[in-house]
Amino acid sequence: MKIRKKLFTYKVAEAKQVLDSGLQLDSITIAYETIGVLNETGDNAILICHAFSGDSHVAGFYEEDSNEENPGWWEFMVGPGKGIDTDKYFVICCNILGSCMGSTGPSSINPATDKPYGLDFPMVTIGDMVHAQKEVLDHLGIKCLHSVIGGSVGGMQVLEWCVRYPAMIKSAIPIATTMRHSALAIAFNEVARQAIMVDPQWNKGDYYQQHAPDLGLSVARMIGHVTYLSDEAMRRKFGRKQQNNKDFSFNFEANFQVESYLRYQGSKFAARFDANSVLYISKAADYFDLADDVNTQESLQDLQGNHLKFLVISFTSDWLYPTYQAKELVKALKRTGQDVSFCEIEADCGHDAFLIQDSRLSNLLGGFLDGIEST
Amino acid sequence: MKIRKKLFTYKVAEAKQVLDSGLQLDSITIAYETIGVLNETGDNAILICHAFSGDSHVAGFYEEDSNEENPGWWEFMVGPGKGIDTDKYFVICCNILGSCMGSTGPSSINPATDKPYGLDFPMVTIGDMVHAQKEVLDHLGIKCLHSVIGGSVGGMQVLEWCVRYPAMIKSAIPIATTMRHSALAIAFNEVARQAIMVDPQWNKGDYYQQHAPDLGLSVARMIGHVTYLSDEAMRRKFGRKQQNNKDFSFNFEANFQVESYLRYQGSKFAARFDANSVLYISKAADYFDLADDVNTQESLQDLQGNHLKFLVISFTSDWLYPTYQAKELVKALKRTGQDVSFCEIEADCGHDAFLIQDSRLSNLLGGFLDGIEST
Repeated sequence: MKIRKKLFTYKVAEAKQVLDSGLQLDSITIAYETIGVLNETGDNAILICHAFSGDSHVAGFYEEDSNEENPGWWEFMVGPGKGIDTDKYFVICCNILGSCMGSTGPSSINPATDKPYGLDFPMVTIGDMVHAQKEVLDHLGIKCLHSVIGGSVGGMQVLEWCVRYPAMIKSAIPIATTMRHSALAIAFNEVARQAIMVDPQWNKGDYYQQHAPDLGLSVARMIGHVTYLSDEAMRRKFGRKQQNNKDFSFNFEANFQVESYLRYQGSKFAARFDANSVLYISKAADYFDLADDVNTQESLQDLQGNHLKFLVISFTSDWLYPTYQAKELVKALKRTGQDVSFCEIEADCGHDAFLIQDSRLSNLLGGFLDGIEST
Repeated sequence: MKIRKKLFTYKVAEAKQVLDSGLQLDSITIAYETIGVLNETGDNAILICHAFSGDSHVAGFYEEDSNEENPGWWEFMVGPGKGIDTDKYFVICCNILGSCMGSTGPSSINPATDKPYGLDFPMVTIGDMVHAQKEVLDHLGIKCLHSVIGGSVGGMQVLEWCVRYPAMIKSAIPIATTMRHSALAIAFNEVARQAIMVDPQWNKGDYYQQHAPDLGLSVARMIGHVTYLSDEAMRRKFGRKQQNNKDFSFNFEANFQVESYLRYQGSKFAARFDANSVLYISKAADYFDLADDVNTQESLQDLQGNHLKFLVISFTSDWLYPTYQAKELVKALKRTGQDVSFCEIEADCGHDAFLIQDSRLSNLLGGFLDGIEST
């Protein structure tokens, strides 16, 4: 049976969330979706945190999507009888603060001016995103989380959740993530930001009444997309295959399939995502640092005295957040007395491996979640 | 004693070089420099091929550079008593066809219109570059090469030289290179090209009478620069160090040193290099394929019947042309009966390792060159 569901939004009213930057947002709306039923004891809730350009639509189909054209982004993982079994668990997924998929972000209307924020939107951190999600959980009456799960930037939120609200969390599964960005990861994000900001259409972030910086955003996404793949995956998928099996065209058209693929991915992304949101979310990811404790005044050390179960997962071909970074995370968690399992999955498809159907990953999550005591 | 020298140019007159594309160039000028003296038997010449954005100024100082502010790009390697010892060898280095450092390229004047070529410049291949270099060697009366040496795109030229003119070459040292670009390498080049081509200043390549697409070119160089480094090198050099050791600025300024470094490298490059040359040279590198023999009708198979000595060098942290590609090259060369030595150098500074002073590399080249019979 296919899951049918609705997209909800929650206006974090009166909240006036004070942000890590010291600024505040007077009005925050968070889009979220839920699947399954919260049990009577209220202890079967699982929070899933999405990655960079994801949204709250983690699995299932909207009631109005009669042709089932829009499955969730983790359809293979979340549903009845799947790795994250919605017959057992009540799943919540929120669109992150700063994004553009229903939650408040730079493209939202600034109540002070009645125009989109643009660069007047305050910088947000991973901690601010998690704080807003907590408001949604309070609204839903959820006091305890069986698990917090997410990959990539979603994995950063998972770690931040554990540090901020350890008492309400039993377990956590950070996947293909890091406790802080390496110089290489910052470098790629910075190149992507520059690609957007040098597009004259970007207009210092003030483009909502005119043409958006689609060309710059498209280049930014191409850069990101390359870092989500791997040398092996690209060799297997594209190699040096040419478009239409023609000879070289000796011009600057897309000769190779990989060129055409990246151009397509770039344009497709530009059509659905907001350029300013890329700037804000990428900066939040760069700032995130649970090891050095630079901006949030928080670090993994804050877990001391709590006993959470962790399943840390990395992928062999992920060169954005390589396994050595997952191992650093495992060590840091163990030093604070947590119960940590670690698994490196042999996969040649790069950083995006957690988004690609793989029964090893589903089984791993299913087994781990079932092994956590329900009370 | 410091080497003093001049920049020469040679006009490949009457040549009307027919290119691999089938088109022809009616007038070609190649900038070149030489160091040392050609011996009486004419068998001590070494051709050095520069990488992507290099030039003919491989070592020494120009006569007019009295403050010695502009050493050559391979100063640590080339000179009296150095790895490539100019007391023994006569070194030649040519700026490649399609570049903008003295040789004919898209920024040169098209004799048919008296304006810069722009995109009317025909696409050139690595083979075309080598063909033009051969004209210079003919002009200098060089009939025999003790060695052909180069890294990266220079290494591609080395291989192409061996395939096109094996009878005049005794040895070859392809460094940090590949016999064909992987999908990943093509992908990075394509993103860089797109960064240039989406800059409105690029104006379909016709910008020489107005503002150049410096912003797009700068982003393109940032992308390239990241691929020339390595995760380790960037961690060591920058880590998460911030500009001026300040707290996060919570804006889109360069907070991290790595951001500031990349922006600086981008702007510096835009001030000295032509955007169209980046397009042409990157495409030539993508087209280059001595394995599949798609465009040039040439492959390493053409070496059969010749017996050259090869020293193939790769670096452990080079993820643009990783060691597995050097090993593929070694195997392909051995299959054609060549005498191949291979060395993988442990170095954490990425693809650019061959440009960074390292006595292991100098000693390796010096020993190999001395071991080649001079007759």
